[in-house]
Amino acid sequence: MASCISYLNERQSQYLEELLEFLRIPSISSLPEHGDDVKTAAQWVSDRLKCAGIEHVSIMPTGGHPVVYGDWLHAAGKPTVMIYGHFDTQPVDPVELWSNPPFEPVVKKNRVYARGASDDKGNMLAAILAVEALLQTQKALPVNVKFLFEGQEEIGSPQLSEFIPAHRDLLACDLILSADGGQWSEDQPALHIGLRGLCALQIDVQGARHDVHSGVYGGTFLNPIHALVTIIASMRNPEGRILIKGFFDAVRPLTAIEREQIAAVPFDDAEYKKNLGVADLFGEPGYSTYERAWSRPTLDVNGIWGGFQQNGIKTVIPSKAHAKISCRLVPDQEPEKIYELVCAHIKDHAPSGINVEVNKIPGHADPYLIPHDHPGNRAALAVHKELFGKDPYFIRMGGSIPVCGILLKALNAYTVNFAFGLMDENVHAPDEFFRIDSFERGQKAYCMLLNRLKDLKI
Amino acid sequence: MASCISYLNERQSQYLEELLEFLRIPSISSLPEHGDDVKTAAQWVSDRLKCAGIEHVSIMPTGGHPVVYGDWLHAAGKPTVMIYGHFDTQPVDPVELWSNPPFEPVVKKNRVYARGASDDKGNMLAAILAVEALLQTQKALPVNVKFLFEGQEEIGSPQLSEFIPAHRDLLACDLILSADGGQWSEDQPALHIGLRGLCALQIDVQGARHDVHSGVYGGTFLNPIHALVTIIASMRNPEGRILIKGFFDAVRPLTAIEREQIAAVPFDDAEYKKNLGVADLFGEPGYSTYERAWSRPTLDVNGIWGGFQQNGIKTVIPSKAHAKISCRLVPDQEPEKIYELVCAHIKDHAPSGINVEVNKIPGHADPYLIPHDHPGNRAALAVHKELFGKDPYFIRMGGSIPVCGILLKALNAYTVNFAFGLMDENVHAPDEFFRIDSFERGQKAYCMLLNRLKDLKI
Repeated sequence: MASCISYLNERQSQYLEELLEFLRIPSISSLPEHGDDVKTAAQWVSDRLKCAGIEHVSIMPTGGHPVVYGDWLHAAGKPTVMIYGHFDTQPVDPVELWSNPPFEPVVKKNRVYARGASDDKGNMLAAILAVEALLQTQKALPVNVKFLFEGQEEIGSPQLSEFIPAHRDLLACDLILSADGGQWSEDQPALHIGLRGLCALQIDVQGARHDVHSGVYGGTFLNPIHALVTIIASMRNPEGRILIKGFFDAVRPLTAIEREQIAAVPFDDAEYKKNLGVADLFGEPGYSTYERAWSRPTLDVNGIWGGFQQNGIKTVIPSKAHAKISCRLVPDQEPEKIYELVCAHIKDHAPSGINVEVNKIPGHADPYLIPHDHPGNRAALAVHKELFGKDPYFIRMGGSIPVCGILLKALNAYTVNFAFGLMDENVHAPDEFFRIDSFERGQKAYCMLLNRLKDLKI
Repeated sequence: MASCISYLNERQSQYLEELLEFLRIPSISSLPEHGDDVKTAAQWVSDRLKCAGIEHVSIMPTGGHPVVYGDWLHAAGKPTVMIYGHFDTQPVDPVELWSNPPFEPVVKKNRVYARGASDDKGNMLAAILAVEALLQTQKALPVNVKFLFEGQEEIGSPQLSEFIPAHRDLLACDLILSADGGQWSEDQPALHIGLRGLCALQIDVQGARHDVHSGVYGGTFLNPIHALVTIIASMRNPEGRILIKGFFDAVRPLTAIEREQIAAVPFDDAEYKKNLGVADLFGEPGYSTYERAWSRPTLDVNGIWGGFQQNGIKTVIPSKAHAKISCRLVPDQEPEKIYELVCAHIKDHAPSGINVEVNKIPGHADPYLIPHDHPGNRAALAVHKELFGKDPYFIRMGGSIPVCGILLKALNAYTVNFAFGLMDENVHAPDEFFRIDSFERGQKAYCMLLNRLKDLKI
């Protein structure tokens, strides 16, 4: 490993220049006018992989933004590891809050400022550079390696749920390493072991054909807003427990070890409340805040509307009322099943004589959980211990990233989150940055982890 | 009376021309650009009163649109009757649905089409013409008469709640006749004896400082939409009974006679539902539809909003959620008291740890009910019986017109609704019209009623 590390050390200024070049491509996946920029980024990644010695590099169409694939498969008898990352970025609004133009990277105090620096160009490039260093110094990789870089992560990877199963053989592997994510702090490593899933729906309630005068008609038929709030209020008890029948049936209870791991993560109640600007926290009794955010399902109204919203009063009984609801899901809840349970609840609780429609909103995602003691996690843990000098926290994300669940279902392979962003790096916000130390640490860590994975037994 | 009636008969074509002239003034009170037109209408009314022989005619400032006052007070020892009406009109939108320009009156099949024809220029002019005919043919009026015509009825008479008490002596009277309203049908008279009152408020719930990610934070603190729907749902039981403590305390129960009077008004359940486009009617058990619409208080959400309202899903926990609520009130509920009771309920039912604000929305109105056997009503009933050949229905309006309550409080005088619009005349809608027969009937009816009122004993 020593030669590999010194190879990397010698090339840091060149690699930083390459990162800046990559960051100059405004590959915003959500904006159609940046579609060509996403393609340019795919080409840049493809070129860089080839330059690193990766074979079968190809820009593959998905129906949406392309995927970049590449591999090096000459480690006979050794495991196959697939490295995942994404070359698209979030939009830049509000652009006026940036200190520098978001796609003109600036290096300041050992940090690179640009959109996509931490999420995810710096992280994914580090993994490519690690593989290059191993190939250059050892003329071979310790394991078979595949790369899967996508250009649509920031819009929820809509095409990957078809693309990945359709390329099951090409992508087959024993383990996936995700270069999209991060650590707890500069001196505290973390292993991300879980993500919540998602399902979403819209309720539309229709009362009278048109808005009508609340004086003339008030009291004679059901106001659709009243029907809607009655339905929604019936979904939770005053303590915040979700009352949808069967909602918790598939929820895998937290084990004693998992609860210990979550309790070991420092939590500052006052700081958390201050950040949100709320007087109190609230939620399902019997669970800590992190347990609720990471390992318990939710049901949240994301939007509600109906009737008059301007100043003053308009005394109407509105014709229609609407709400958007989404549920964060945990293993082993299935989005489709939960959607059906919520629909059944709405049907059971809808007042009679009023028209209540429910429609699924696209974007369902499976929950994801890798066993904390999975061999891949054990290898990552050893690398973190070596690099940071301490054990990682076992943490989860309350949000939903569909790709881990898709990869697990399609390839029967778990994803180890192995990336080096930090929480203060303004991901999705103005003045996003990536620490140059993290960029270097990522390169070395990937070398060390790939080396350890040669003994992986799944 | 015979000479008075023949005087009117001889002048109908001239009076119709005058009505058309009055209708050409686009006196829309809600649109600032028509402020001068409202003044022009006030001047027209003032001139017409003088021409009719009314004294002390004056256009009086109110701080908003003016009032026109006038009187004839030479019936010594006789009651004083004040005739009320309004010379402002509703707006004309959607103007493209009108068959003719709304302020270019057209006479067709014995109807006058124009904005304000039925509401209220035709009706108020009829009362002036009646007084003119009495003065011209009898050289005196059977009672003392005052006129109070306003220019802000269509915007809720905001200045009258100050103007009327401030002119208590000038406006003092034994009875008010409102020339704003109507009859049941061409051959069925009606006495409007009640109006519901109104109070309105807005609830603003504030959760986190900004919208936050429902994945990262979902389950850890209270979503303000959940708090809002919980509060609103707590206000009514599933049968539609309002659960605000004390809400019904001041409600005067319907008497057996009142229930009989309401039951005597024909009601077609199928037609009512068809007009609304609803499958079922709904409301407080134990009351008929008209009883609920006319004599029972309501609590309606007129608008609700918070979070994401566009296509698809945005997985936020919104920072804020809002609702506008109004209550229709019945005697002897007081808007201020009901507002306080609703506030107290919200306070009692607001979940802890979240900021819930309540603010009054201007536009409160007292409920109004004139005893069905009030001497003024008995006189009107006798006129209706003479004109229509049958007893009137005793009906109420579910809506709120502040002026009756203001007049009762300030002058201690009841208002008898005595006007001749009909329900199909597209009031507040395109192609408003007034029947020329009703215009003539109104003139004669006012002559007959004023004559009867000389014996009024309050």
